[in-house]
Amino acid sequence: MRGEMGSDEGGLYRSRLGRGMDEEALSYLSSLSDDREILLDDLEGTEAHVIMLYEQKIISEDEAAEIVKVLEELREKALRGEVELEGGFEDVHELIEAYAVKRLGVEIGGKLHTGRSRNDQIALDIRLRVRRYLLELWEAGLRLAEAFLSKAREERDTLMPHYTHLQQAQIGYVSQYLLAHLDHLLRDIERIESCYHRVNQSPLGACAIAGSTLPLNRMRVAELLGFEGLIENSVDAVSSRDFALEALSAASIMMVNLSRVAEDLIIWSSSEFDYVELPDELASPSSVMPHKKNPCILELLRAKTGKVIGLLTASLALMKGIPTGYDRDLQEGKPLIWEALRESCRSVRMMAKVIKRIRFKRDKLLESVAKSYAPAIELAEALIKHSGLSLREAHQLVGAFVKRLHESKIPLRSSRLEDLRELAEEVLGRGIRLPEEAFREAVRADRVPRLRLTRGAAHPEEVRRQIEEREKLLKEHSSRLREALKNLSESRRKFEESLSLLLSRSTA
Amino acid sequence: MRGEMGSDEGGLYRSRLGRGMDEEALSYLSSLSDDREILLDDLEGTEAHVIMLYEQKIISEDEAAEIVKVLEELREKALRGEVELEGGFEDVHELIEAYAVKRLGVEIGGKLHTGRSRNDQIALDIRLRVRRYLLELWEAGLRLAEAFLSKAREERDTLMPHYTHLQQAQIGYVSQYLLAHLDHLLRDIERIESCYHRVNQSPLGACAIAGSTLPLNRMRVAELLGFEGLIENSVDAVSSRDFALEALSAASIMMVNLSRVAEDLIIWSSSEFDYVELPDELASPSSVMPHKKNPCILELLRAKTGKVIGLLTASLALMKGIPTGYDRDLQEGKPLIWEALRESCRSVRMMAKVIKRIRFKRDKLLESVAKSYAPAIELAEALIKHSGLSLREAHQLVGAFVKRLHESKIPLRSSRLEDLRELAEEVLGRGIRLPEEAFREAVRADRVPRLRLTRGAAHPEEVRRQIEEREKLLKEHSSRLREALKNLSESRRKFEESLSLLLSRSTA
Amino acid sequence: MRGEMGSDEGGLYRSRLGRGMDEEALSYLSSLSDDREILLDDLEGTEAHVIMLYEQKIISEDEAAEIVKVLEELREKALRGEVELEGGFEDVHELIEAYAVKRLGVEIGGKLHTGRSRNDQIALDIRLRVRRYLLELWEAGLRLAEAFLSKAREERDTLMPHYTHLQQAQIGYVSQYLLAHLDHLLRDIERIESCYHRVNQSPLGACAIAGSTLPLNRMRVAELLGFEGLIENSVDAVSSRDFALEALSAASIMMVNLSRVAEDLIIWSSSEFDYVELPDELASPSSVMPHKKNPCILELLRAKTGKVIGLLTASLALMKGIPTGYDRDLQEGKPLIWEALRESCRSVRMMAKVIKRIRFKRDKLLESVAKSYAPAIELAEALIKHSGLSLREAHQLVGAFVKRLHESKIPLRSSRLEDLRELAEEVLGRGIRLPEEAFREAVRADRVPRLRLTRGAAHPEEVRRQIEEREKLLKEHSSRLREALKNLSESRRKFEESLSLLLSRSTA
Amino acid sequence: MRGEMGSDEGGLYRSRLGRGMDEEALSYLSSLSDDREILLDDLEGTEAHVIMLYEQKIISEDEAAEIVKVLEELREKALRGEVELEGGFEDVHELIEAYAVKRLGVEIGGKLHTGRSRNDQIALDIRLRVRRYLLELWEAGLRLAEAFLSKAREERDTLMPHYTHLQQAQIGYVSQYLLAHLDHLLRDIERIESCYHRVNQSPLGACAIAGSTLPLNRMRVAELLGFEGLIENSVDAVSSRDFALEALSAASIMMVNLSRVAEDLIIWSSSEFDYVELPDELASPSSVMPHKKNPCILELLRAKTGKVIGLLTASLALMKGIPTGYDRDLQEGKPLIWEALRESCRSVRMMAKVIKRIRFKRDKLLESVAKSYAPAIELAEALIKHSGLSLREAHQLVGAFVKRLHESKIPLRSSRLEDLRELAEEVLGRGIRLPEEAFREAVRADRVPRLRLTRGAAHPEEVRRQIEEREKLLKEHSSRLREALKNLSESRRKFEESLSLLLSRSTA
Repeated sequence: MRGEMGSDEGGLYRSRLGRGMDEEALSYLSSLSDDREILLDDLEGTEAHVIMLYEQKIISEDEAAEIVKVLEELREKALRGEVELEGGFEDVHELIEAYAVKRLGVEIGGKLHTGRSRNDQIALDIRLRVRRYLLELWEAGLRLAEAFLSKAREERDTLMPHYTHLQQAQIGYVSQYLLAHLDHLLRDIERIESCYHRVNQSPLGACAIAGSTLPLNRMRVAELLGFEGLIENSVDAVSSRDFALEALSAASIMMVNLSRVAEDLIIWSSSEFDYVELPDELASPSSVMPHKKNPCILELLRAKTGKVIGLLTASLALMKGIPTGYDRDLQEGKPLIWEALRESCRSVRMMAKVIKRIRFKRDKLLESVAKSYAPAIELAEALIKHSGLSLREAHQLVGAFVKRLHESKIPLRSSRLEDLRELAEEVLGRGIRLPEEAFREAVRADRVPRLRLTRGAAHPEEVRRQIEEREKLLKEHSSRLREALKNLSESRRKFEESLSLLLSRSTA
Repeated sequence: MRGEMGSDEGGLYRSRLGRGMDEEALSYLSSLSDDREILLDDLEGTEAHVIMLYEQKIISEDEAAEIVKVLEELREKALRGEVELEGGFEDVHELIEAYAVKRLGVEIGGKLHTGRSRNDQIALDIRLRVRRYLLELWEAGLRLAEAFLSKAREERDTLMPHYTHLQQAQIGYVSQYLLAHLDHLLRDIERIESCYHRVNQSPLGACAIAGSTLPLNRMRVAELLGFEGLIENSVDAVSSRDFALEALSAASIMMVNLSRVAEDLIIWSSSEFDYVELPDELASPSSVMPHKKNPCILELLRAKTGKVIGLLTASLALMKGIPTGYDRDLQEGKPLIWEALRESCRSVRMMAKVIKRIRFKRDKLLESVAKSYAPAIELAEALIKHSGLSLREAHQLVGAFVKRLHESKIPLRSSRLEDLRELAEEVLGRGIRLPEEAFREAVRADRVPRLRLTRGAAHPEEVRRQIEEREKLLKEHSSRLREALKNLSESRRKFEESLSLLLSRSTA
Repeated sequence: MRGEMGSDEGGLYRSRLGRGMDEEALSYLSSLSDDREILLDDLEGTEAHVIMLYEQKIISEDEAAEIVKVLEELREKALRGEVELEGGFEDVHELIEAYAVKRLGVEIGGKLHTGRSRNDQIALDIRLRVRRYLLELWEAGLRLAEAFLSKAREERDTLMPHYTHLQQAQIGYVSQYLLAHLDHLLRDIERIESCYHRVNQSPLGACAIAGSTLPLNRMRVAELLGFEGLIENSVDAVSSRDFALEALSAASIMMVNLSRVAEDLIIWSSSEFDYVELPDELASPSSVMPHKKNPCILELLRAKTGKVIGLLTASLALMKGIPTGYDRDLQEGKPLIWEALRESCRSVRMMAKVIKRIRFKRDKLLESVAKSYAPAIELAEALIKHSGLSLREAHQLVGAFVKRLHESKIPLRSSRLEDLRELAEEVLGRGIRLPEEAFREAVRADRVPRLRLTRGAAHPEEVRRQIEEREKLLKEHSSRLREALKNLSESRRKFEESLSLLLSRSTA
Repeated sequence: MRGEMGSDEGGLYRSRLGRGMDEEALSYLSSLSDDREILLDDLEGTEAHVIMLYEQKIISEDEAAEIVKVLEELREKALRGEVELEGGFEDVHELIEAYAVKRLGVEIGGKLHTGRSRNDQIALDIRLRVRRYLLELWEAGLRLAEAFLSKAREERDTLMPHYTHLQQAQIGYVSQYLLAHLDHLLRDIERIESCYHRVNQSPLGACAIAGSTLPLNRMRVAELLGFEGLIENSVDAVSSRDFALEALSAASIMMVNLSRVAEDLIIWSSSEFDYVELPDELASPSSVMPHKKNPCILELLRAKTGKVIGLLTASLALMKGIPTGYDRDLQEGKPLIWEALRESCRSVRMMAKVIKRIRFKRDKLLESVAKSYAPAIELAEALIKHSGLSLREAHQLVGAFVKRLHESKIPLRSSRLEDLRELAEEVLGRGIRLPEEAFREAVRADRVPRLRLTRGAAHPEEVRRQIEEREKLLKEHSSRLREALKNLSESRRKFEESLSLLLSRSTA
């Protein structure tokens, strides 16, 4: 495509400047290769702008039709992957205008930019692109939420030790673990949703920074492109990128939590834990160690979290302390945004695949539960209930009891009430009341969850209730996403009608 | 206070562990000094918990009353600044329990922790503290918004060049500049508001990680403390810090924008720009250069933005890839949260003071406007309207015109239409139509803003309209903040009633 | 101390500015509380400066003596912790000068700042302080290196599986693991050492930014303070903080590696791995789960790594894009530097304690080694040697073999050569040559390390050799640190002589 | 190339795993596209390994020759840009081996990996690549240093105000400013140089993590590839990336300083300062504002600094807390390293171009100097010298003097000694001694630099001396770079001899 439009020495915009740009400088300046992401968005935005220019009688119907035809032509090339984003131009905006000028002459092609500046144009493009990414992330998030939910249903009664400090803490359920991450994810999705509406506002019409003396209809362009409103103030419209920083923050927080799931699953995949097994098609072999089955996908997700954090940091650092207005610094922010959101979308989708297909090894988990000292906490609570001990006393007594058992390698479930009683005299200086039955219940790791009484606890009925309520919640979330998508496709339909009308009327 | 409760060698919780903790290790481990921030929150949460324990008949009325009395005693000491957070304890939770045990014996004092773990307790405390910070930031944000608005009213018609790339781009108004930042700030406030509601959920009752076998009433505690709901799932409740990461993200985005305002004002304070003057009481002298008047406050705000970015980065990096559940890593996150939110609150308040008191030097601004080439863009648009040139042609022609003027040191306002006409023949190979009056209007920097036709432009009427609408918007925002505050004080009132009732009934 | 010197309304430096500073602004501006770190350094630097002023006859001997006396007085207060760094002053420099003025009147006390600006003064103070931190980190690093080495000696022949992807990869030695981290640490120490010499250069004498018209002797001050040379160019001297960024980078890289050691030990502390046991005095109990023994120190070290990363990020972001010269932004960098280096020093010392006292559970490790499939790689190499298979063929064959064993739950060590032979026909379509003895050797996990032939491998003799060589290396490192310390104490001695001489001569 | 080698369903290494990898997972996992950076390095490393295998008689001469021939064939394709790094393979290592297997069969092609793991192989490749980047950065740094020096020579006597807080502080020289950045840059180059030697160590031969039972000669491979030594310990060799983190730190620190130069030049390019002019070929036009000439290159450099900071952060965060050994996380670090170093190299080169070609507008600078109040500091020093005032008294007096002049709009150079005398009585309550000549000298901004007496000051002779010494310094730096390059080309020559010898002997 380069040759086809041959950016002459000076570039389209260099009327004021004497010489053509230094080649190395141009390559340093050019964002063309990063602009592949927004080629289609820029074309769409430009078409909407041209329709409005014609409706406002700023350009003629014929001019508008010719320009749109050329833009459609370019879009088709782009869809066939035939537009090479290289050389000669500073960015995709210049490339597109140069193409129109090449095809229609500067008298007509040169009108496509009327009333626009690259400053408001790129702000528009980034919003269009981020909007698409957020929809993708929203969708992927909901798919992952479904995966958590369906796996939670599957493993509803699968016992497991819950960990704090990577030490067994209390006995619970695989489902409770999965539901925890589902709840976190729903908050992630809420953040994405509210960011979406802040992104979905049109900045076009701000021109360079102060607006235009041409009778541009900003709301009409916004409507054609499916925006919910305007970024009204012209200085704000070209200067601000808070919407993108917000999107990256939401993505980072989401990734950070998924990195913790990844860490859990990596540890549980070790032969020492051996709680889960990745399906072969999601595991990676060693090039030299034939016995290995590596959870590489999860390691990469963990690493990509570091990367997304760094991209957010870069974006914030880049914006820090630059003057209000469009500064070229902002250009450098674009690829950081694409990269962070792309990696996040991929990672969320990948995690959904992992959650769906990973196998929890119930026997191994049960084995681990059976020999756990974790019910110590429930034993202490039994002492509180039956013996009137304070938590601190109960804690001291059970702590000493467990220490002793541990040293003698006696599992908690095989411990004896008599020994506890005897120890109580020693530790507390007095006896305890605890019925044998209550004692037995409390030291049976596989039974303690059923004793729990608090809302949201790892208890079979609570888990069931959570699952049911989350099912409803997920449906509501899905319908909100569908609503957003419907609005966009509705706008797109009307936009295409305007486009067809214009093209059909044109005599060219 | 240390001596008063004398953490014995082993610490309160060390029943299972043989020896006392190594002193250097304890100092490394202890978060006591960072916990000053949450001493009062922890006391408040503990009192609510104790009221609930008694209402649920888990402890007796007398026990509850005694414990609450001791907690109130400690709170008063804390308010008088007499609680030294040093030595001997791992954290504020241990310190408070040790105090109660010291005063009431382990049989009663040791009950204050019943059904709680430090895992859900600290999650509660952080939410209480972040809630307070967010209210402070919300309030400070609204005050700054008012400062922007009132200054915009004051400087409504003060002309200034708007900048892109720190080059004069278009002529506009100081008010348009201020309104741009007001609009950004309102989005910042929206982010804080929606974060507030995600923060305002109670995690208490999750116990260590899986809930409790005691009949705790989680909703009751939430209600007493003014929370809107629960973080229901117990694993989620102790593991997640997404709410704090979200708060830090919102603060970072806000700070990044304010750092740009700071940069503008620093540059405008230079003797070369000389557009603004800080009042003496907000400027800083040099220790050795007697002629200096330094905009240090703004430089510090810019720097603190870097710091807040780093604290967000630290918080994200710290959470990356740690196992689900409470890990001690989370402790290290606390001071990062306090520091980032504290610095943000202070900076927003400081910026409000600056905006209120800074003086825009109207004469200097007008002088700069008068000699500006910035209306070139409006001249190009005049050519589009009157001469039917395409934007690109008009751009080329005006570009060449300005280049020539600049070389001959002729200001744009003194340029002649004949010269433009002549140049047109040369550059475009054809003549142009442009009435003298239109030409004159377009080259007068002080007049061009009135020619603008687009919504949100730097135009006197648009500025006036923006100001009026933002006034209404600000009122709505304020009433939402007042609503949140009212809910909290309502809860607090009921909480204190329960407290009084308990204390009055008690025979102790 | 505040009252004692009573910063009057205007502050010392406000001659040019009309009013006193706004109180909230002063609190925002003031770095006093962060300056506790450099109070002693500032006093030391000031004394050296005063000695030079007198030697250069810029002030009289008596004046110098009086000033030094007052500074010594203040230093003693500081050492007794009696200097409150609060209120009224922008920083420690102003506080000290105000003290001298209070005690000696402005005619003499006001001379202490002659030929200096806070710009070069703070650059000096930071270098003095970072120098001390680097010496501390260097020392702590060497102590940790010794801990690694001595533990490596202790566990020289303790077998363990080495992990990649947290999967058992090859059998090796605990010592080999420890020596790996020793080698990394030695590179960390090298980085600290070369940073030390770049830090140890004096910026004093640059004055505000361009030097002074007074005959200051910059080299003399440098010599008194033990610096190796000057940061010569005056603009460079006041503007640059690269030395501190370098120190933070070196610390971050060091911490990142230690966080990996922490992660290993946390995982190995889990009851599922159970490879190591922390001594009780370095472990932390649960407030509610009496059976727990948490590796909190290691979790905190991991978290502090995130914090140090964030502080480095903050420092870099803060410096990004500010104008050359001293900007107030730099002030905000100070506490970031202190915090990052302090946390690093503490963490390195804590890790040394952990490494020294942690117990490797040899029986558990051996048990794990015995049932490992890790020797598969050595079996593949045996096939290469004896059977002429290519690595890829051997890999395929052994991979299939291990898969089969794994499915039938047969440990590698109990596998049979016949089965491998049979499988070879199937997988490779041809037979293999492999003596029974070679086969047996290769599948014995506890034997394979002895078969290794490469330099630096996990082989008993290689481990022994590494230990011996590192002992020598460590001695060389230690003597370089001792050299640096000796130079400083030598300078300090001469400095104190000059000080005594001055004080003794003085009649005051 | 994809079709040519057709990665079969399972992949080369999947002997142990049942099914082929999920396509989306493979695309998530694959680093192929990032591996373009190391394709040639991997080929070079592989050839060196094969030569060693043959010399050690691990494979036959014929086998080695055949493999090398195929590798050379692939290298030529790569040099012609004909190797498509897409699809089917996890990374470049698998792609290369698959190619060899395709061409030579698994019996011979499958030997290329003998005694290697991807773990040590990728560590080698990264070191080879980072080594090249560091040489590039070193070279670019020296070119920029020369540009600073030669511009300093050119503008040796060009007066300018030096700024602190973006306020005029003292009068100095453009050359002094440039020399400051030269000195910073020389420290940057020192950091790169010492990092270079830590990078230039071979990790190959560590195999998966514990070494090999084959008689590999690690030193021989190191020698062939021009390394200065080994990363000896096998666990260290595959786990560590400190060398890359160090390279990124050095690059970040360098970029941060250059971002400050960029900020200065952006501000000086504004029409308000108007101190410098970028040549047209390094400036960028506006797409709509014909009068603009934007310093986009400098804005991008400033932004890329934010990006490089973020990439360093990402790299550190990614490494934080992952287990020792090779984890797949490390893969994600590669493109971060390439990107950060590539951007740094480009930016340094671009800055050299800017410095060489930028024009300092001497008349504008002089105009600014002439009306500056900056000599106030020298006036205060004159009072110290002649009148025996303390600095603080002189500061107060001159501060009040300047305040009065400023209010009456009288420039300092036109001020009168009488007025100062009078003011002294008022401010200090006593008279001052100051000869008229000394007064006149001190208030002439264009004269004060010549009065300075300190080393490294902005004084004509000091600037001259600095220039001369830096010339020598630069020569020494250059010769150290040339030495490093010579060593590499010497090794490369010997390596090619070994290669030729092998190829010539081979009968194939």
